[in-house]
Amino acid sequence: MRKVYLDSNATTMTHPDVVDAMLPFFSERYGNASSVHSFGREAKKDLEKARQRVAAIINAESADEIVFTSGGTEADNHAIIGAAEALKEKGKHIITSSVEHNAVLNACRFLERRGYKVTYLGVDEYGLVDPGEVRANIKEDTTLISVMTANNETGTIMPVDEIGRIADEKGVVFHTDAVQAAGKVRVDLRETGAHLASLSAHKIYGPKGVGALYIRKGTRIEPVAYGGHQEKGRRPGTENIPGIVGFGKACEIALSGISGHAEKIKHLRDMLHDRIKREIGGIKLNGHPEKRLPNTLNVSFENLEGESITLGLDLEGIAVSTGSACTSGSLEPSHVLKSMKVEPPFLQGSVRFSFSAFNTEEEVIYVAGKLPAIIDRLRKISPARKPA
Amino acid sequence: MRKVYLDSNATTMTHPDVVDAMLPFFSERYGNASSVHSFGREAKKDLEKARQRVAAIINAESADEIVFTSGGTEADNHAIIGAAEALKEKGKHIITSSVEHNAVLNACRFLERRGYKVTYLGVDEYGLVDPGEVRANIKEDTTLISVMTANNETGTIMPVDEIGRIADEKGVVFHTDAVQAAGKVRVDLRETGAHLASLSAHKIYGPKGVGALYIRKGTRIEPVAYGGHQEKGRRPGTENIPGIVGFGKACEIALSGISGHAEKIKHLRDMLHDRIKREIGGIKLNGHPEKRLPNTLNVSFENLEGESITLGLDLEGIAVSTGSACTSGSLEPSHVLKSMKVEPPFLQGSVRFSFSAFNTEEEVIYVAGKLPAIIDRLRKISPARKPA
Repeated sequence: MRKVYLDSNATTMTHPDVVDAMLPFFSERYGNASSVHSFGREAKKDLEKARQRVAAIINAESADEIVFTSGGTEADNHAIIGAAEALKEKGKHIITSSVEHNAVLNACRFLERRGYKVTYLGVDEYGLVDPGEVRANIKEDTTLISVMTANNETGTIMPVDEIGRIADEKGVVFHTDAVQAAGKVRVDLRETGAHLASLSAHKIYGPKGVGALYIRKGTRIEPVAYGGHQEKGRRPGTENIPGIVGFGKACEIALSGISGHAEKIKHLRDMLHDRIKREIGGIKLNGHPEKRLPNTLNVSFENLEGESITLGLDLEGIAVSTGSACTSGSLEPSHVLKSMKVEPPFLQGSVRFSFSAFNTEEEVIYVAGKLPAIIDRLRKISPARKPA
Repeated sequence: MRKVYLDSNATTMTHPDVVDAMLPFFSERYGNASSVHSFGREAKKDLEKARQRVAAIINAESADEIVFTSGGTEADNHAIIGAAEALKEKGKHIITSSVEHNAVLNACRFLERRGYKVTYLGVDEYGLVDPGEVRANIKEDTTLISVMTANNETGTIMPVDEIGRIADEKGVVFHTDAVQAAGKVRVDLRETGAHLASLSAHKIYGPKGVGALYIRKGTRIEPVAYGGHQEKGRRPGTENIPGIVGFGKACEIALSGISGHAEKIKHLRDMLHDRIKREIGGIKLNGHPEKRLPNTLNVSFENLEGESITLGLDLEGIAVSTGSACTSGSLEPSHVLKSMKVEPPFLQGSVRFSFSAFNTEEEVIYVAGKLPAIIDRLRKISPARKPA
């Protein structure tokens, strides 16, 4: 059976050039970067080269501002908990949005259990946070603002530059979860003015198990794990050199082709969207029509359940999701769509198609060919179907 | 120049079969294990297969007792902080040893800053903790004992079975850092009775960036990171499938050849030790002569500095270390040797030779041939040299 992968916001295939870049570090250049002998020094050199490549993708001022982590979740946890704890003498109030990834939301909930106050800002129908609301909610004891660069479920791109300016003006630390944005669209942290940013390799053709936390020079933050002196004392544990080298390579590939890839991917995505709009009734686009990642198409099908559509597509070899992979399996409707006040007939029926540079027009034609019959069949058996 | 790697307690080469096992998961079976579609289900299946293989190497009762982490440091942090926090209503006293890895020691120090009391037990001249001392230090409010299975610097194997029995009898949770032991010597957690154990892949020919925490069924422990529901809510973040599969393969290889490998490695190690004893004066073995990992040889050279010897060997292409890679670069003498009360003339002059299954007799002969001249040269210029 044909296999079409349209779930690239969950994870991507590792780019063949990334795998090639990683391979020597398993069997030849396998030193521990903390060792002082030649094997260790070699590993250290490649570690620092990768750090520069990751710094480049977000236009960081210095590679020293990059701390490697085990992924986006660890980076989010480190940013939120580490900054809150470092600044707790100043205050214990955090502002975030209700559409953040669970790594941010659940780190905030952990802090609430420890006496912090968290304001979860709502969003508009497109999933956008209003920078004016951010400003209005900053209080004396606000130490941290965390708003994602782009949403993982809808692809909506947040006004982070504006939020960054407000944070700067008010002297509040600003963290942005850029896991879904960096490498897909231009992310310039010098422009955004973010103090902290989370990155992940496996969303942009890098390996799983590697991410990074950008820590702007001078930002106060505590570690969240304890051990050796790796990463200048900011993150202990033997560095995952093959993974980090792969992350660096993925950033280099993304940076070299970012505009071309984005154009191509957007074309495929819009092609599918056009076909769906033309051939299937009762649909709704979730997310901003323009301010959106070029690879993400989140569509709700009226009176249906996303799980059933996903299953129907899976039987045809097509991989999509109802929302975040990190919350899949739960029967709750998406917290992102709920925050956007998506109406009940559309709330449960969302499907996220997320594209990669490896997708083709042929695949889009295949998916567009299969989808109408699946929707039609499900609507015929749907209990929510209006009586004829 | 010839390259000889004798620093396998810092990290090992990834076994070619492990790399082969990992490769398909980068470019073909690259699904996110949380996704419900076929790519996700495939990944999930391989994840669970790896879990069984890791469970087997420590004779865990069930694969469900294995939680994958980003490495040994995360596992140690999770065990110490997670168990202490889960049991804080019962008490806030922890017993550990002064020769633990920094991941354990620094997690304990973090807890001390948060109001916990920690007893750091000393060790005898071989680096052994006295189980009687463990027993004598258990108080009403003791909730956790953490003693490593084998020491990373000296290879000394601790009486963990006895400590486990005491912990069981007293109703205290017992954690053992088995990072250096599992896969090198037989580790049977059903016998030890440990409730928590830390493991790492890259010490036994697996990839860097992957480890596991064994959590005996019924053990109370809190997560230390927050996000998605992966690992049954015990550890969030997209699972590093290639790394985890590689870890599983490494465990399978270790388990299938554990006695044969150990014999071969021990032979090489003892061969080097014999040559050093025969040809170089003023040396001292650090660690227990018998109760010791078969791959570890830690020797002090009187009145010399380990760093200089390491450097001299490095110039000949030979990679060794003075102690833990995680503390290298610091000028402090090893906390392990200090705890063992190694006398000043021997305290700074330690060199750890740690072997792998990839080493050969020829390599040992090469190293044994180079070492005497290096020691001789250094002793001639050493300021601590006694006047003739």
